[in-house]
Amino acid sequence: MITVSVDAMGGDHGPSVVIPGAAISLSRHPGMRFLLFGKKDEIEAALAGHPKLREASTIVHCDVAVKMDDKPSQALRNGRWKSSMWKAIEAVKSGEADVCVSAGNTGALMAMSRFCLRTMADIERPAIAAIWPTLRGESIVLDVGATIGANALQLVDFSVMGAAMARALIEVERPTVGLLNVGVEEIKGQEEVKEAGRLLREADLDGLDYHGFVEGDDLGRGTVDVVVTEGFSGNIALKTAEGTARQIGEYLRAAMSRTLMARLGYVLARGAFRRLSDRMDPRKVNGGVFLGLNGIVVKSHGGTDDEGFAAAVDMAHDMVRNGLVDKIHHDIHLFHDGPGRGGPEEDGEDARPKAAQ
Amino acid sequence: MITVSVDAMGGDHGPSVVIPGAAISLSRHPGMRFLLFGKKDEIEAALAGHPKLREASTIVHCDVAVKMDDKPSQALRNGRWKSSMWKAIEAVKSGEADVCVSAGNTGALMAMSRFCLRTMADIERPAIAAIWPTLRGESIVLDVGATIGANALQLVDFSVMGAAMARALIEVERPTVGLLNVGVEEIKGQEEVKEAGRLLREADLDGLDYHGFVEGDDLGRGTVDVVVTEGFSGNIALKTAEGTARQIGEYLRAAMSRTLMARLGYVLARGAFRRLSDRMDPRKVNGGVFLGLNGIVVKSHGGTDDEGFAAAVDMAHDMVRNGLVDKIHHDIHLFHDGPGRGGPEEDGEDARPKAAQ
Repeated sequence: MITVSVDAMGGDHGPSVVIPGAAISLSRHPGMRFLLFGKKDEIEAALAGHPKLREASTIVHCDVAVKMDDKPSQALRNGRWKSSMWKAIEAVKSGEADVCVSAGNTGALMAMSRFCLRTMADIERPAIAAIWPTLRGESIVLDVGATIGANALQLVDFSVMGAAMARALIEVERPTVGLLNVGVEEIKGQEEVKEAGRLLREADLDGLDYHGFVEGDDLGRGTVDVVVTEGFSGNIALKTAEGTARQIGEYLRAAMSRTLMARLGYVLARGAFRRLSDRMDPRKVNGGVFLGLNGIVVKSHGGTDDEGFAAAVDMAHDMVRNGLVDKIHHDIHLFHDGPGRGGPEEDGEDARPKAAQ
Repeated sequence: MITVSVDAMGGDHGPSVVIPGAAISLSRHPGMRFLLFGKKDEIEAALAGHPKLREASTIVHCDVAVKMDDKPSQALRNGRWKSSMWKAIEAVKSGEADVCVSAGNTGALMAMSRFCLRTMADIERPAIAAIWPTLRGESIVLDVGATIGANALQLVDFSVMGAAMARALIEVERPTVGLLNVGVEEIKGQEEVKEAGRLLREADLDGLDYHGFVEGDDLGRGTVDVVVTEGFSGNIALKTAEGTARQIGEYLRAAMSRTLMARLGYVLARGAFRRLSDRMDPRKVNGGVFLGLNGIVVKSHGGTDDEGFAAAVDMAHDMVRNGLVDKIHHDIHLFHDGPGRGGPEEDGEDARPKAAQ
């Protein structure tokens, strides 16, 4: 049985979106249990129309809710030990829940998750992984903004974690992994990216198939299952793609409403447009996943609706069912300390696994 | 009179695209002159159908052509002093031409341009500026891949150069400038970006209006006239946007051809679709501009057609007509050494102009 802890106060709309969202996901996974953290009366009111969810849930009252514009330090100062966000994360630490979902603000959620769950042994930095819709299906892209900058070993850790997530979520056996880079010959890439490429090639890990460098336009193409980069460029790539999709949507709307013929064409092609917006719908792949902590936290978009929140809960459910945390533990351990495959030497920058022939 | 030097052998198709492209641009700017560098017989053959261009052109025969997959070091070794690319750049240095246009490979073109033209006094690094179509019109984004990484002062130089280009090209009087950053509170950005923001705010330059940080989705929105970032994330943003546009185009084509009703709708809305693809057409804004050198070099997409190459020549023409190089010289000088506004102090990392009250 899978138990999901939910920060019911998170997001722009709190329980009025979170509760119906959880109910939708429950209808798809009838065995799930929920721990709902937040203001009891608001949660009760939202549960009124969802008797099945009410039956599957335990409400834990919390007076404090982290605000969407709280800075991480403020959130920690005011909300640690007692806010709905903190309590929902803590339930994963204590083992009461298998995974936590929140639509609260990213910075606060990451700060609290790090503080409460701590990073896994051997992992220096957590990462936020996003599901990226591509022409071939879906890819995983990380880090999209947990931290800025990453050294070569951290990029390799991201690769291992992203590949484990791909195995858990997209269900590919040996996911292909690419390092995001720029395409200008000879100035090709930051040193860390080059070094990470060398490490991945030499390590020849069982859990992933290292493809090489990829560029920005490989993201939408779906060239690889997992795209790895540090949080600054990852965040910029993610937001640039979102912005471009919105921009083209605007162009399309403007073009379609300009003439009578275009409007008539739009009416006839309505079904096709609906399929198009389905594929461009960010709600369908809603949820950034925090990887590298002792427990999984799923971040839903703050402004999402019930369908979007349900997608985030679905994703949380699938990752638990497919044993994501164990997969990461196992692979990271193998990479860093594994027998038969030398761990990185203890000399800092040059640390790298011995070549596995 | 404006003279444009053209590397006629550059690009995937050489003179067969470059010459008709130049002819289209000449028809829009009848006063222009051309210096055409490359294989004489091939250029002559391509000129056959373009008597007006032939009249406005001088052909300079070059035996050597830089290949599209030459590495910058190979290009320099094999093509310096003698290739069509080198000669076209050199014509700007000698003053025979006002601006150079090439569809040759970016790495080689940048390496030769740096070697031949050298960076301007006070400028440490050149940048490649791209024109970015936005919901509000067009913005300038730099650096999209000349170099990787940039310190705070270099980012300020990029800002000054980008703003000068905006004044020359988009013809806004005091362009707004934003620094590309990530939106997670408190881990907000690389130190260099924060420092550049402080420098820009304190310098309060005449030639630009510093807006603050912008994020990836502000690119398509057109929040500011000039978006500044270092070459790694700039290149990734550019390619991610191109990839996303292509991806949505594919979705749209697939959706529109799926059912009879959708196909019929497509036929009726044809005009609207044509307007849409016009706005998404990368040829319309073809041309990266190398800034920060003693002369302007315009890089056209290698795979472009004659319309795309014409757009690059148009852009080159407009920048010369509007005195871009002088504008940059003037503004960079003002920022670094200008009277009434203290130049940066000579102490490296902390260098910054004195606050201008």
